[in-house]
Amino acid sequence: MPDIGKLLWPKSVAVVGASSDTHGLRGRIFEIIRSHPFAGTVYPISRSAAEVQGVKAYPSVEALPEVVDLAILIVPAAYVPAELERCGRAGIKAAAILSSGFAEEGETGTRMQREIAAIAQRYDMAVSGPNSEGFANIAASLCANFSPASDKSAGLLTPARPLGRGQVSVISQSGGLGFAFLDRARPRNIKFRYIATTGNEAALEISDFVDYMLDEGETDVFLLLIEAVKTPGKFKRVAEKALKAGKPLIVGKIGQTDPGRRAAASHTAVLAGSQAAYRAIFDRYGLIEGRDFDEMLDVAVAFLACGDRMPAGRRVGICTASGGAGIWMADACAAAGLDVPVLDAATRAALDAYVPSYGTTQNPVDSTAQGVQKLGYAQFARLVAQSPSVDGVIVVITARRSAFLEADLPKLKDLARECPKPVFMWTYTLPAERTIEILNEAGNPLFTGAPGCARTMRAMADYRALRERLLETASIAEPVTSARTMVAALLAAAPLVLSEYRARPLLAAYGIGTENAGELVHSGEEAAAKAQAMGRLVALKVQSADIPHKTEAGAVALNLVDADAVRAAYDRVLTAAKRHVPTAQIDGVLVQPMAPPGREVILGVNRDPTWGLLLMVGLGGVLVEALDDILLAPVPLDAAAARALIGRLKAAVVFRRYRGLPPADVDALTELMVRLSQFSADHAEEIDSIDLNPVIVHGEGKGLSVVDALIVKRDVPAAERRGAAE
Amino acid sequence: MPDIGKLLWPKSVAVVGASSDTHGLRGRIFEIIRSHPFAGTVYPISRSAAEVQGVKAYPSVEALPEVVDLAILIVPAAYVPAELERCGRAGIKAAAILSSGFAEEGETGTRMQREIAAIAQRYDMAVSGPNSEGFANIAASLCANFSPASDKSAGLLTPARPLGRGQVSVISQSGGLGFAFLDRARPRNIKFRYIATTGNEAALEISDFVDYMLDEGETDVFLLLIEAVKTPGKFKRVAEKALKAGKPLIVGKIGQTDPGRRAAASHTAVLAGSQAAYRAIFDRYGLIEGRDFDEMLDVAVAFLACGDRMPAGRRVGICTASGGAGIWMADACAAAGLDVPVLDAATRAALDAYVPSYGTTQNPVDSTAQGVQKLGYAQFARLVAQSPSVDGVIVVITARRSAFLEADLPKLKDLARECPKPVFMWTYTLPAERTIEILNEAGNPLFTGAPGCARTMRAMADYRALRERLLETASIAEPVTSARTMVAALLAAAPLVLSEYRARPLLAAYGIGTENAGELVHSGEEAAAKAQAMGRLVALKVQSADIPHKTEAGAVALNLVDADAVRAAYDRVLTAAKRHVPTAQIDGVLVQPMAPPGREVILGVNRDPTWGLLLMVGLGGVLVEALDDILLAPVPLDAAAARALIGRLKAAVVFRRYRGLPPADVDALTELMVRLSQFSADHAEEIDSIDLNPVIVHGEGKGLSVVDALIVKRDVPAAERRGAAE
Repeated sequence: MPDIGKLLWPKSVAVVGASSDTHGLRGRIFEIIRSHPFAGTVYPISRSAAEVQGVKAYPSVEALPEVVDLAILIVPAAYVPAELERCGRAGIKAAAILSSGFAEEGETGTRMQREIAAIAQRYDMAVSGPNSEGFANIAASLCANFSPASDKSAGLLTPARPLGRGQVSVISQSGGLGFAFLDRARPRNIKFRYIATTGNEAALEISDFVDYMLDEGETDVFLLLIEAVKTPGKFKRVAEKALKAGKPLIVGKIGQTDPGRRAAASHTAVLAGSQAAYRAIFDRYGLIEGRDFDEMLDVAVAFLACGDRMPAGRRVGICTASGGAGIWMADACAAAGLDVPVLDAATRAALDAYVPSYGTTQNPVDSTAQGVQKLGYAQFARLVAQSPSVDGVIVVITARRSAFLEADLPKLKDLARECPKPVFMWTYTLPAERTIEILNEAGNPLFTGAPGCARTMRAMADYRALRERLLETASIAEPVTSARTMVAALLAAAPLVLSEYRARPLLAAYGIGTENAGELVHSGEEAAAKAQAMGRLVALKVQSADIPHKTEAGAVALNLVDADAVRAAYDRVLTAAKRHVPTAQIDGVLVQPMAPPGREVILGVNRDPTWGLLLMVGLGGVLVEALDDILLAPVPLDAAAARALIGRLKAAVVFRRYRGLPPADVDALTELMVRLSQFSADHAEEIDSIDLNPVIVHGEGKGLSVVDALIVKRDVPAAERRGAAE
Repeated sequence: MPDIGKLLWPKSVAVVGASSDTHGLRGRIFEIIRSHPFAGTVYPISRSAAEVQGVKAYPSVEALPEVVDLAILIVPAAYVPAELERCGRAGIKAAAILSSGFAEEGETGTRMQREIAAIAQRYDMAVSGPNSEGFANIAASLCANFSPASDKSAGLLTPARPLGRGQVSVISQSGGLGFAFLDRARPRNIKFRYIATTGNEAALEISDFVDYMLDEGETDVFLLLIEAVKTPGKFKRVAEKALKAGKPLIVGKIGQTDPGRRAAASHTAVLAGSQAAYRAIFDRYGLIEGRDFDEMLDVAVAFLACGDRMPAGRRVGICTASGGAGIWMADACAAAGLDVPVLDAATRAALDAYVPSYGTTQNPVDSTAQGVQKLGYAQFARLVAQSPSVDGVIVVITARRSAFLEADLPKLKDLARECPKPVFMWTYTLPAERTIEILNEAGNPLFTGAPGCARTMRAMADYRALRERLLETASIAEPVTSARTMVAALLAAAPLVLSEYRARPLLAAYGIGTENAGELVHSGEEAAAKAQAMGRLVALKVQSADIPHKTEAGAVALNLVDADAVRAAYDRVLTAAKRHVPTAQIDGVLVQPMAPPGREVILGVNRDPTWGLLLMVGLGGVLVEALDDILLAPVPLDAAAARALIGRLKAAVVFRRYRGLPPADVDALTELMVRLSQFSADHAEEIDSIDLNPVIVHGEGKGLSVVDALIVKRDVPAAERRGAAE
């Protein structure tokens, strides 16, 4: 691994392609670097000019008086590989390539990117880009980029009074959006450490930068802007490292919707779509997603201001002096999935001393203007935070005038020191500059939008819960022992499509579907005999790798009562199957006891082009798929993760006691998910998809029935795989 | 109706309770009024002081040298009725009551509010409040309130360069939130006409102010903040008037979630909950809802800037010079329900002349920095707007520097004049002040958040579509002729709970459920004979007003094949019914042919405490109710509204051709909804609820089957009604 420190912390820099024309990008970057007090030497490299912006220029990096640490390449794309090679030969260990015209232009550009990667590897160089906008090392006052946001005229690089004690780094595949964070965060006094833009990622990718910065230990909050993750395994490893270290990764994922793809969205695309896969990974590894700058910055501000003061749960107390604003905040909290419980009696009694009769101590606590005058915001928040009913506090303020908060500042600071619960502030008027400073100093994050304030509290609670779970279990993806070897051998010997009778023994080795296996028969008589032995209503299902859609083919018969019915059905399903696919290779007919009733669940595993195998769970039936209530998670997953996934289904309510039905056996479903995920993880390289559709979950303690099973192996062309797995 | 003009446009004002102590509210209001150049006379009224803030004071309104137009009352609550009476006797025609301590404190306060209402009526006075924060007539420089937002130190009341040519009025039940709009809108250069806060609405309510301002014709956009609508009929009438006039009502509805109510949420509360009812009204009358200040102001800004340039549909073209930012905007558009279609070939060809090879003309159109330099934003937007594939354009800009837009200003103005499609601007950097001015002048709304920009485009498209539909149909709630008289007579004679056999003839008079009526029988033999005559599988259902939950009582038998089965079932259901409710009065048993299969729909009518009867539609089954996919609409509704409602169901997709099922007969469902809504509207005073649950909708052209029907009449205690209707 090359040393990213050489890229981000160079002592000397060469700008290859620098120009005196400051209207062009090649002149701008040189001008911007020199406008900041970077302590190192900066050399312009120019083929044509002896001097650039008054500085002596050199014709090539080889002509420089020293071997610089970093070369910034901003020459036309076609010259980039040769220039990079020259840098490597000269012993330069880092390069930032800002030139455009690579993979985004087609095959030639893609080939040039491969050349860049090869050169970087050959010389062990840390190379960012191409097609990036460069980077900024704010701590070193090095702005190796042409973004207007790091131009001196745009404002200070570091705020005079930064928020909290932490630093934020931005790592973005998009140059424009990456530097826009620096610009948009200025009113919020965020102290940045790095802005790195990675462009097409021919060599270094987002994960490499995060990894470096985690090791460095100076970045407390990360803002990531991602179009597509290049190396999924590395990303997951680094994300887990960040979660363990308690350094939140706040992520904007762009390109979640493809208008073109949407138009032609097929059933399979919906279930295994890349957007859902990314979300599954973010959820698993505790990345906090924001839909735009403000949502992302809200979360960053909260972590900077609160440090370790994170809510231990989702229960919020709201302090307000304006009834209307308090109600609006309660609405926002409920919409964000937070609870706003009625406070306990002791807390209410303590508040009663301050709250007049036309206020309320319920929650939101409306002290009225009169009450807050007596209490002050700090004391008000402290009383509510002391309630065992809440995990965090939101104080509704009007930040237009600072005098009242100014008087309260010492108490606010005490509160931050003494109270382990976070105290957020939401102002319904525009904040005065001094108010922002006061709250910065006090350690209270300030929000101007109620939805953003509530959403952030929720994100912080989820982050804390996930991290605590991870620290308990030591690792997110922990391998466990299993019936691995036997199944691997059976799987290797099996055909590409394993219909139910073939799939079941493999799954059963992991304890999946053992309750309902059924038996393969080859005649109506045999079927009738088996059915009688089962002593229950049975189903018959034709088994053929060529007929994955058995129901539509008429190759299934359900609810067969007696031997006659079974015999008749045997002939019927076989005839239908042969009519449907005349060339089908039929292995036999499965006789299976009918499952008792329950909630119908779809459970499966599908392969995502980026993230590999993902477990899929949803409630069954046409309707739920239509409502897009399907969740994904990377495999394997433990019981806590499985249970959390079930809880996040919109349809989760139907598992509870519901209109006369007893609660469903969620424990059994949880166990099934863990087993299936382990099966998939153990044989990830062999498997393309597994469908248990449906699984019938019975009442509490009654278990479940896996009613159908299909495994499709990997290594057939994608088009065929899709058809078979559907 | 009293003259609100006297309240908002007084020539002379008395401040009853004015004080020299400017730290208190009674001193603040007098100070604030006098700090602005209001042209009228302002008299302080004080029992104790001869002078207030240097102005000669009077002991009572009766001692004034003239009869003032407006009295502002800011005395303790207990004195308010007497003071108001004194004002009335003195001939004063308007009063604003700012005192607190009325209905929010309990019974005494509620009684005082009734007194206020009576006095207002007796003297034909325009009375606002109590418990309000007063109002501001910005046009007259009259700030009759104590809000810090209208203090001179907070900034100008009217921006130096207002956005667009229109004016905005705020009408809010909450004082603090109402004036916060003035504060928060300052950076966006919105010109306000009035800020009116209505408090407890003892007399005048939000609708009265909107009505006055619509008649006045000077307000172009309304911002409403509502906790609860006082007189629903008036609200609907005024909302329709505003929609006809093309003056958008942008509404914040606070108190949508009740943490207490949520905890105990019963099934019925979910279906008929007040939040859903408000949303149904907002949707019907074209009110545009926002969840916070920024969402509401985004919409206001767009209407002010665009005037009549509203999108004719939901298709958006996106212009960008930053690939990443363009993708992010496309994501936001898709999330807001907008389409981002690939542009037509002619438009793409026209753009090709400017867009370099590493850009794209698909949509978003990424011109790259190079392309936009050649084109300019105006020409870029014009080329995209000319595409017949789009209804509006969003231009992604960086507004940090104004020079580029400055040069483009004349062309932007031409574009606004010549192009009927709206052109929105989203900046991903923070806008410079001059940029805001330029875009104001050009007539382009500027957004700093991508989700808000997209959401606003969508809201505008929906508003235009709804308004055009209204203007075509002349009225939102148009009465139609019907079988009204006959049904009214039958309904009057019927018991409170009409079980299916009683409800069906009434509904059939409106063409509802005629396909599947069934017949009432009183013996097993009779049942068997009727079933045989029907020649199909039948169901038996015990008919009793005392057993509304027939299925749970075991009082229903389904899928009966032959006469023997019917006879046996007859005895079984009767026995079960009698066991379930031994005292039940049983009217007979209904024999009904089983309906063919199809999509199961719940259709009903429920009474909301505020909005009266609302039609309810959703897909049937336990799951959909759990997913909260139930929509409401006021009755009656026409076919277009019914169809739109069906289309807004999350589950609407299952009506389409779906996994082998033919499309559902949505026409039949639409017609049923219109008929049921007409039935309900015609007999609104008599009906508490109607349930058609389920309705089975068959394939296209195959109609539907109303499988069950229940009508509950009004005028029984609420608790009983609920139980019966469940």
